Parts: sequence; structure tokens; C-alpha cells
Amino acid sequence: MTQTTATAPLICPSILASDFSKLGEEIRALEAAGADWIHVDVMDGHFVPNLTIGPDVVKALRPHTSLPFDVHLMVAPVDNWLEAYRAAGADIMSVHPESGPHVHRTLGQIRQLGAKAGLVFNPATPLNVLEEAVDLVDLVLIMSVNPGFGGQKFIESSLKKIERARAILDRAGSKAHLQVDGGVVAANAGACVAAGGDALVAGSFVFKGGPDAYAANIQALKAAAA
Amino acid sequence: MTQTTATAPLICPSILASDFSKLGEEIRALEAAGADWIHVDVMDGHFVPNLTIGPDVVKALRPHTSLPFDVHLMVAPVDNWLEAYRAAGADIMSVHPESGPHVHRTLGQIRQLGAKAGLVFNPATPLNVLEEAVDLVDLVLIMSVNPGFGGQKFIESSLKKIERARAILDRAGSKAHLQVDGGVVAANAGACVAAGGDALVAGSFVFKGGPDAYAANIQALKAAAA
Amino acid sequence: MTQTTATAPLICPSILASDFSKLGEEIRALEAAGADWIHVDVMDGHFVPNLTIGPDVVKALRPHTSLPFDVHLMVAPVDNWLEAYRAAGADIMSVHPESGPHVHRTLGQIRQLGAKAGLVFNPATPLNVLEEAVDLVDLVLIMSVNPGFGGQKFIESSLKKIERARAILDRAGSKAHLQVDGGVVAANAGACVAAGGDALVAGSFVFKGGPDAYAANIQALKAAAA
Amino acid sequence: MTQTTATAPLICPSILASDFSKLGEEIRALEAAGADWIHVDVMDGHFVPNLTIGPDVVKALRPHTSLPFDVHLMVAPVDNWLEAYRAAGADIMSVHPESGPHVHRTLGQIRQLGAKAGLVFNPATPLNVLEEAVDLVDLVLIMSVNPGFGGQKFIESSLKKIERARAILDRAGSKAHLQVDGGVVAANAGACVAAGGDALVAGSFVFKGGPDAYAANIQALKAAAA
Amino acid sequence: MTQTTATAPLICPSILASDFSKLGEEIRALEAAGADWIHVDVMDGHFVPNLTIGPDVVKALRPHTSLPFDVHLMVAPVDNWLEAYRAAGADIMSVHPESGPHVHRTLGQIRQLGAKAGLVFNPATPLNVLEEAVDLVDLVLIMSVNPGFGGQKFIESSLKKIERARAILDRAGSKAHLQVDGGVVAANAGACVAAGGDALVAGSFVFKGGPDAYAANIQALKAAAA
Amino acid sequence: MTQTTATAPLICPSILASDFSKLGEEIRALEAAGADWIHVDVMDGHFVPNLTIGPDVVKALRPHTSLPFDVHLMVAPVDNWLEAYRAAGADIMSVHPESGPHVHRTLGQIRQLGAKAGLVFNPATPLNVLEEAVDLVDLVLIMSVNPGFGGQKFIESSLKKIERARAILDRAGSKAHLQVDGGVVAANAGACVAAGGDALVAGSFVFKGGPDAYAANIQALKAAAA
Repeated sequence: MTQTTATAPLICPSILASDFSKLGEEIRALEAAGADWIHVDVMDGHFVPNLTIGPDVVKALRPHTSLPFDVHLMVAPVDNWLEAYRAAGADIMSVHPESGPHVHRTLGQIRQLGAKAGLVFNPATPLNVLEEAVDLVDLVLIMSVNPGFGGQKFIESSLKKIERARAILDRAGSKAHLQVDGGVVAANAGACVAAGGDALVAGSFVFKGGPDAYAANIQALKAAAA
Repeated sequence: MTQTTATAPLICPSILASDFSKLGEEIRALEAAGADWIHVDVMDGHFVPNLTIGPDVVKALRPHTSLPFDVHLMVAPVDNWLEAYRAAGADIMSVHPESGPHVHRTLGQIRQLGAKAGLVFNPATPLNVLEEAVDLVDLVLIMSVNPGFGGQKFIESSLKKIERARAILDRAGSKAHLQVDGGVVAANAGACVAAGGDALVAGSFVFKGGPDAYAANIQALKAAAA
Repeated sequence: MTQTTATAPLICPSILASDFSKLGEEIRALEAAGADWIHVDVMDGHFVPNLTIGPDVVKALRPHTSLPFDVHLMVAPVDNWLEAYRAAGADIMSVHPESGPHVHRTLGQIRQLGAKAGLVFNPATPLNVLEEAVDLVDLVLIMSVNPGFGGQKFIESSLKKIERARAILDRAGSKAHLQVDGGVVAANAGACVAAGGDALVAGSFVFKGGPDAYAANIQALKAAAA
Repeated sequence: MTQTTATAPLICPSILASDFSKLGEEIRALEAAGADWIHVDVMDGHFVPNLTIGPDVVKALRPHTSLPFDVHLMVAPVDNWLEAYRAAGADIMSVHPESGPHVHRTLGQIRQLGAKAGLVFNPATPLNVLEEAVDLVDLVLIMSVNPGFGGQKFIESSLKKIERARAILDRAGSKAHLQVDGGVVAANAGACVAAGGDALVAGSFVFKGGPDAYAANIQALKAAAA
Repeated sequence: MTQTTATAPLICPSILASDFSKLGEEIRALEAAGADWIHVDVMDGHFVPNLTIGPDVVKALRPHTSLPFDVHLMVAPVDNWLEAYRAAGADIMSVHPESGPHVHRTLGQIRQLGAKAGLVFNPATPLNVLEEAVDLVDLVLIMSVNPGFGGQKFIESSLKKIERARAILDRAGSKAHLQVDGGVVAANAGACVAAGGDALVAGSFVFKGGPDAYAANIQALKAAAA
Repeated sequence: MTQTTATAPLICPSILASDFSKLGEEIRALEAAGADWIHVDVMDGHFVPNLTIGPDVVKALRPHTSLPFDVHLMVAPVDNWLEAYRAAGADIMSVHPESGPHVHRTLGQIRQLGAKAGLVFNPATPLNVLEEAVDLVDLVLIMSVNPGFGGQKFIESSLKKIERARAILDRAGSKAHLQVDGGVVAANAGACVAAGGDALVAGSFVFKGGPDAYAANIQALKAAAA
């Protein structure tokens, strides 16, 4: 998995903003354009008020890229689904503390399946669960919008939350990635990285202008973050 | 909407068996191959033990064909989702009696949204709900497998259930379509039509051999049914 | 409890259509106007998509009339609520088969609490549960609209359902009341009674014109039903 | 598995009425006393308002007898639990139609696990689901009380339900057992068998008088049924 | 909306303690007696073990006063209900963090509907969610009893919780109201205000003695708080 | 109830690791072997992915010992079950904050039933709920594994959590017991006590070697903790 550095955050385009009628092609274009991870938004219409794609779609996309699949599971309860997404090709699986009362077990199960384990925080969700589970976490995802839909505006107070998450990780000596998702654009990418983020999920910003613009858009995010 | 006749059932390929990485292309190929409707399997991972695709995917597919979208909503509760799927381009929306205690209202709402309303029966679900709601039904879908996954074997006792559903529709003077879904292949298509079915959902059978074979596969089903 | 006769159905005004800011006054006016029962619509916002009033409101209304309180519990699960509504003054409690898998027990519990037990059928709900539980039923309520809101239009196919329910009751030698609820007006009251109904819930029709008109409205329903 | 005959119903003592502090000893006593099957009541406190025992208890009991374990799963949703009870030693697993919308699949899964599949009907549950799933059923269980607690009184109308179930099985040519559970005593055992039952679950009746009386109690049931 | 000052807390009588048979009259009496807001307790019988009143009741009360309606939504999930209560006349809508995993979105939606957004803390619920969502909050409600029923005794440890909430608001520069609900009487009103509260919900204390005593009761609370 | 001292923690064998076929005998053996409390793991198969035993089993065990029954309720929602377990003989009832939104009420209800109230923290559950409810707590249980199954390995980070819980209790002047459950063996018992624990739940460690070894195993734990 690509290593993070101070100046070059990982860019993780979210398929939520892609053309769902040609996902394979989109993913190949994203890899060619320099994406680091493919961010896959799985929504079940129960944990979040939207339903996107499930394991068979993820599996169909797997042959189209060698990039890591970073799968954000907006699903509850989530434990019985981990095997299916891992088998479909997920490299990272991120879950919400609200997805069940045993998130420590969930994180452990993800690792036992050979994947990296992520923990996601909604805008109003406190970070204290991270302090309890930091040993089991390979990635922390700070939601800078409320999950469910693309095209939302970045919540400014997320920057302080990224800083607090960074402090928790550093204090624990954790090497986990700190990812930001929601309304990320060039105008705030630098602030996200300055606050401690090292992986940026981007939807609309990356996809605007169509496939020909993906490389420039990704590059713009990287430059803004530098 | 295409009219049914005694000898030519509607062929409704299910995207469940298609290549999810290029759904637009698949749908165009199906239209070119002579499909009558596109059968869209929406699963939420709660009503059924699988999650497939949601409204944004349906919307992305809409521009790729002028064929009717026949959307099977394996979702519960379902009422709050109808608008989203209609807005995404659904022409027919089919629901299960088990999706909520007010299926009569659900069917009425589908019609109020300008779509055709379908009622779906799982293998062990009795048909008496159909007798109560037959006035509101534009399509009856008899599941000849338990919904959730492609590639299952046709349940033989479904043929008698199709006959019973046909009898209920005829007795009520209903012009509703009678659709069959699950394990439909050339070897049983004729029996399905003989039992009273006039629309056949087909997954693996249509998609085997890849896009070049779609027309022949669809033709084989039609021929077998004649 | 008032006995039913062939020509004079019980008129049961539903408080759903009354002025919720002065329920006590409304109920006194209804009693003065010749109502037979007060029909109380309890909705929990989960079983039906509306929330109305709960046990403390029923209790506050109890001193305002000596008429029977006929409480329709649109609540699920319902078993743990029976005591509260009985203590609040319910004389009849009606429940849906969909409110839980043990409706036979629920009906028995209602009787053990000293109340009359009712079984309610939504428009698409088959009557076969009535055949299984007819021994435990003091009232059958046929919904002629989908429950949740006042002001809906009577579903014409309800008339045949009333006939079928009447046949089941008669065949079993049951003396249970057969009540109709939803869109009942003078224009269909006669048909409801002719089909076998002997208790009519009426909302908008009774309340139109305000308290001064209640007596005339109730009389109109009775006359139409004669 | 013991075969049924016209005059000798299978006697299936329910552990619900045994001494839970020495279940192994109880089961050995039941086998010595001539029991045919051990009827295990699994309740999850959600599907029924009582919680009894789970898979680890069943597993601990398995070495104490070679009699078939006839496990009644009062659990919802039930599909994810089948493997655990089969692994624990269940020979028959019986489920309720209300345990999920896909009971046909559930019955099929039970058979795929190598166990016999049973379908249970609550007192108010119609038998029409049996007509849809009769091909998949090795046992039909008619509840003659509402499940959840021991010591309840036999519901007389169950006898007609047993007759109707027998008719459905015979019409379908099914060899499935027809079991009765709830308030079965010598006084009604004959009627249960006359109505078509061939397996009687008995709780309090078998256990009264303690282990020394088990053989006589079982014999009394058999005699009454003859 | 009335502004808070150091010495005069807003008095918000709760209709939970009023006479539900004449709510309009009660509300007019409260306004005449000097109430500042009308506190409306909406309970759905699922989030809390009581069911009170729903949107149609709120709507019926709206014409009876020009005071703000301060609606405490004890409902889960709550998002789909916001429009109905706003349309019914709610000026403030307060929700619990436990009502769903996206309380940040809920608060934003309340504001988008043009109402003030409140966040409620049960006695055992930590305040850290307030720190995450303080930007979106116009009111914080500290429950000094467990919600569900009137007439409970004030939990003394609530005073320190009010102090902590006040500190969070002040630190964030928030102008949000800090409301206290549960067992508030003259004997503890001063302590509530001293701890930082500026709006007091009062039930039994305001309503004791009937309408003629409302003004004196409200005045007594204000005096005690001064 | 036995008082804790610095050097002799209470040993609370968990029946989860006992022989479920002879629970009465096991409990008598544990009492004879010097156990202080009997730890009863109640699991409902919903809050945790296992189902163990319910109230009737607890009741059957009650006559077999005079030791306190320390009942860990892994059940949600839990409030309606408290009476049943108290009536069955529970002396202590411990609940999870995740079992419902009103844990403060739950703890109060346990005390009103005359039992001691415990609050349980899963590995990833923060302790801040304890700070809000410390006045109502007679026991704090720190889970050192994820609840559901026996035989798991002690999570090392639990030691710091025990220290933090001890600090909260001491700061509040609480005399509540601080219990540890999950993977407790002689090798970590001393560390648990050093961190502030005064009651150790032990499963496999106590039961290994069979009844003859129970006394030595319990003694080994006590010695290790001294």
C-alpha cells in the first residue's frame, strides 16, 4: 500500500461521483490519472438514506485495476457482511462505531480476513471510541459531510476534528492513515493535510470535466495539498 | 408498453447476471439483442441477504435504452423509496407483500407516481394477497427461486403457482402481466408460458456466451416458449 | 354494549377527524349527537406513517363520556401496550394480525383484561387469520382505506370483503360486530350494512359542519344505512 | 428416525418442563422412560416473550442420548442460526413462517445441512404457507398453545387445524410427521391422533411426579392415543 | 424569540402535565399566565416507553397561541418526521443523539426548515456530542429526569451537567439556550439558573392548582430563579 | 455481599464455561471450591451473536447455592426483562449502555427491584457514560474480550481501561465493585487487581481440569492476584 508523506496525500477518488453505467472504465481512467486508492461507498439504505452498490458490483470492478479498494461500509449491522466484501476484493474496510455495539470485534475480524481496518467518524460522532480502539485501526476516516450523498459542502469544523484525530494517533504511536471524506476540493485540501490528514477522498472535484480531466484534477488536489 | 400474446412472452433480462462493470454497455447490447424489458434487481441487504444497486445506478442506466425498466424492489420498508426509483427512471415497480403491512397503499402510490405496479410472490408466499389487491396490480411476479442470488435452479412447483395466479387474474378480469423469475431457461420457458406466464425474467441463460450470444439466447427463449 | 340490529348500525365517530385542541368537548358533543361508540385511533408512527395520541390522552378523555371507547391500536409490537390502554379506559381494543406473530395470544390477553377484542384487516390483508381466531374475536374491523390518515376515499372492493367477513362470522356462529372504517359516508353506508356491516366508523362525514351538525350527520348515516 | 403408525404416536417430551439444573440427567431419564424424540424449545426473547437455551446448551446435551433432537426454533431472523444448531446436534429443525420472508429458503437450507425440516404454525397462523412449501417439509408442527411458556391449556380449535393439516399433507402425498405441541395430556392425546397427529410434544404431563413417573406418564400418553 | 437574561429564565410549561382533553384552553391559559414557550413532548412509544401526541395534535394547537412551540421529539428514527412537525407549527425542534447516527444532518435539516435546532441529553448521555455539533445548536436541553413520564423527581447530579454544558457553550461562543427539563420546581429553579440554565421546562409545578394558579406558579418559578 | 480488599479479589466463575448439562452440580462444586459469586452470562442472540440461557434456567439454578448471582444481561432492549431475572434470583444485574437510550433509568429500576446495578463496558466503549451514571452504579464491569463466546484471549489494553475506571470511581467516592471479564487467568490476574479491579470473572481457567480442580484453580487466581 502506498506510503504517506508530509507533502503528498493519497488521493482516493470516490466512485459515488463516477458514471455508474461504466464503472470499470471509470476505474481504469482513475488509475491512469494517478489515483492512489479507489474509494468505494457501500450504502444499504438503512444506515444511511441512500443505497449504492453491493459485493457483486465490487467483485466485478476488481479486475479493472490493481489499486487498493478502500471500501467504506455504510451498513448496519455490518459484521455478517465483512467476508463478502473481502472476497469481492476489498483491501481496506472501514466501519462506523454506530454499526453495532461490538466495533472492537468488527475491527479485529477485518484484520483476521487479511484486510486493513478503518474506523469512520460522522460529523457529530465524538472521537473517544478511537481512543479505545486505536490499537486495531489502520485507517481513520473523518467525515467532513454527513454520509449518504455526493456533492455536499465541506464542514469547516472538520479541520479541528482532523487535528484531534491526528493527536490521538500520534499519542498512541499509531501509523494509521488519517483520511478525510466529504466536500474535499483544492481550496481545502491543503488545510486538511495541514491538520494532519494524509488521504483525501474526493468525488465531484475529481470527476468534473470527465475522464480527460481526471489527471489534472487529481494533480490539482495534490498540488494544493503540498 | 409491449403487449403480451399467447405465443410470444416478453423477455426481461435481469441485470443481476450482467457485468456490473459496464452496465450501460450491457443494456445497450440487450436492447439490440431483442430484449423487451430490462429487469432491475434492487436488493438492500436487509429484506434479502444480498445488496445490489440503488437509485443512482438506475438513473445512470436510464439514458442507455428506451426499453421499460422493470424494477423489482427487494427492500423493506419500501414506501419511502418509491419516489427515488421512479425519478431514476423506473417504469414498473414491483414490491413484496412482506415489505410492509400496507401493500395496498404501496401499490396505489406506485400508480400515483405514474408507474405500473407489480406484486411479487416468494416461493412460500400464498397468493391470497393477490386476491385482495388484484385491482391495483399491473404485474404479478412469481418467484421461481428464493430471491437474493443469481444462478439458482427453477423450483418445479412454481408452475402450479403460475397457473393459480393466472386463474386469479382471469377471474378478476385483470389484464396484468404474469411474470416468472428464477432459473428460467429454454427447457422450462414453454411450461411457464403454458401455465399462464407472459413475461419471463432470465439471468444466466441470457448472459451465457457474452454479448454476441444475447440475441440467440433471447431468441431461444422465445422459441422455446412458442 | 349496544346491540346491533339489521337496520341500525352502530355509529362510531373517529376522533381522528375531530378538533384535537378540545377533545373532551368534542366527545361530549358526539355523545349528545347520538354516537354509539367513540372510535379512538392510536397510531405510533411505526406501524402506520402517522402518530396520533397515546394512553394519557385516552385517560383524559374517559371522564367526558359514558360511551364505550373503541380503541384501534395501530401499534407494533402491541402486546406490552394493552394494559395501559385498558387502564386508560378502553372498552374494546382492536389489533392487526401484522402487529406481531402471536395475535391469538394478543386477543386472549385483551379479553383477560376485561375488554372486548377486535381484529383489524388492512385492505390487502386476507381474512384467513380471522378463520383461525374467530373464537377469540368480539369485533372484526374491515379497513376500507389504508390506515394512517383521515379524509381518504372508500375502497369499493371493501364491500365484497365485508361480505366475506360476514360469511366467516356467520359460519362460525360468531356474534362479533363487523365494523367498517375508512371513507364511510351516507352514499356508501347502506351498501356497507347490506354487505353485513353493523358498526360504521365515520370521520370527516360526522364532523363536517362543526358540532351543531353532528346530530344531523349521524342521523344521516343511520338513515342511509336503514 | 422412528416411523409413525396409526396407533402409536411419537412422544416428544419438551425440555421446557424439565429441571434446567440437570438437563443431562433429565434427558437420560426420558430416554430410559421410552421417549421417542427430545423436543428442544429454543426461544430468543424476541420472536417469543421468553428466552430459554441456545446452541451451547444443546451441544452439551447431545452426548446424553441417542434419541433425535427435535429443535423448535422460536427465533427471528432464523437463517443465520441454522448451522449452529445443526452443529450442536439438532436432527430436526422447525421454523415459523413469521421468522422471515424466505421460509422456503430456510427449509431448503435445513435439508442441505442434513437435518429434517419442520414448519410450525401458531394458533392464529393460517395453513396456506404449508400448501406452498409442502415439498420441503419433513414435519409440520401445530401449536395448540401460543408459544413461549409451559403449562398452558390446550386450545380446542387446534383439533380442526390438525385435521386440515393432515388433509394438506395427504393430498400432497407427503410423508411428513404431523406434530402437536401445547397442553397435550392424556385427555386430549387420542383426539390429537384421531385428527391426524402422529407426534405429540408433552411438557408438564410427562414431567409431573418426577423422573420415576416419566415412564408411566409417557405410557399413559401412548395408551390414550391408541 | 425571547432573549434570555441572567435573572429571568424562560418558563416553558410542558403540555405533558396539562389536561389533554382541552389542550387549546390550557395553552391559552398558559399564555395568559405568562409562559414564554409552550413545551410539547412528542413520544412515539418506541424511543421512550410512552406515546403522547403527534403532528395533527400540534397543528390543532397552533392557532391557540402566538408563543413559540418548543417541540421535544422523543422519536427514532426522527429525520423523516421533521417536515411534519415544522408544518404543524413547531418553532424549535429538539432531538436526541440516540435518534439516529446522523444527528449533525438532523440539526442541519431543522435549520433548513426554518426552525431552531435543539439537542437533548438524557441523564446518562455524555455531552461530548455537543462539542462536535455546537455550531448547529440553538438550544441544549439537559434532561433532569429520564424522559417518558411526568411527575418524576429532579436528579441532583443534573446541576453539574448544566454547568458543564454551559461551559461548552461559552467556550464555543454559542448563544444557544440552555434548557432544563424534569422535576423542575421552585426549590431547584434557582440552582438550575445558577448552574447556567436559562430556560426551564416545568410540568406538575406549573399545573398544580389548576388554571387559576398557573400565573402564580410561573411567577414563583421566575422568582425562585432570580 | 462480600467486601473487597486490596489483596483478595472476588472470584466470579462464569457458567459460560461450565457443563450446561449439569448446571446445578457445577454451581454446587463452585461454591464448595471457594467461589465468591456465580457469574451468569445471559445472551439473547441479538445484542451479541450467541444465545445462552434465560430466566427459567437462572431460576432452576437458584436453589443450588447461596452465593450471589451476578447476572450479566447481554440483551437489548433490556428494560422489560429486569423483573424476570430479579424474580429468578439475580442479586446483581449488569447492563450495557448500548442496550437502550435510557441506561440511567435501567440502573435505577434494577435498584428499585432490590438488586445491585452494574454497568458494563465493551472493549471499544468509552467510559464517559460511567461518569454520568456513577451515582447509580454498584458494579462496573470492564470487558477484556468482546462478549459472546468463552475462551478468548485477554485484550492487554484493558488494563489501562481498568485504571481509568478505578480513577472515575475513586474521584466520585464510589464504593462500586470493579469487575473484569474475559480471558482472565493467573498470568494477568495480578495486573487486573493492580490496575484497580476487585472482582474477576473467570471461565476456562476455573473450569479446566474438571470439578476436582476448581478449588485449586480459584486459589491460583486468588494467589496470583495477591
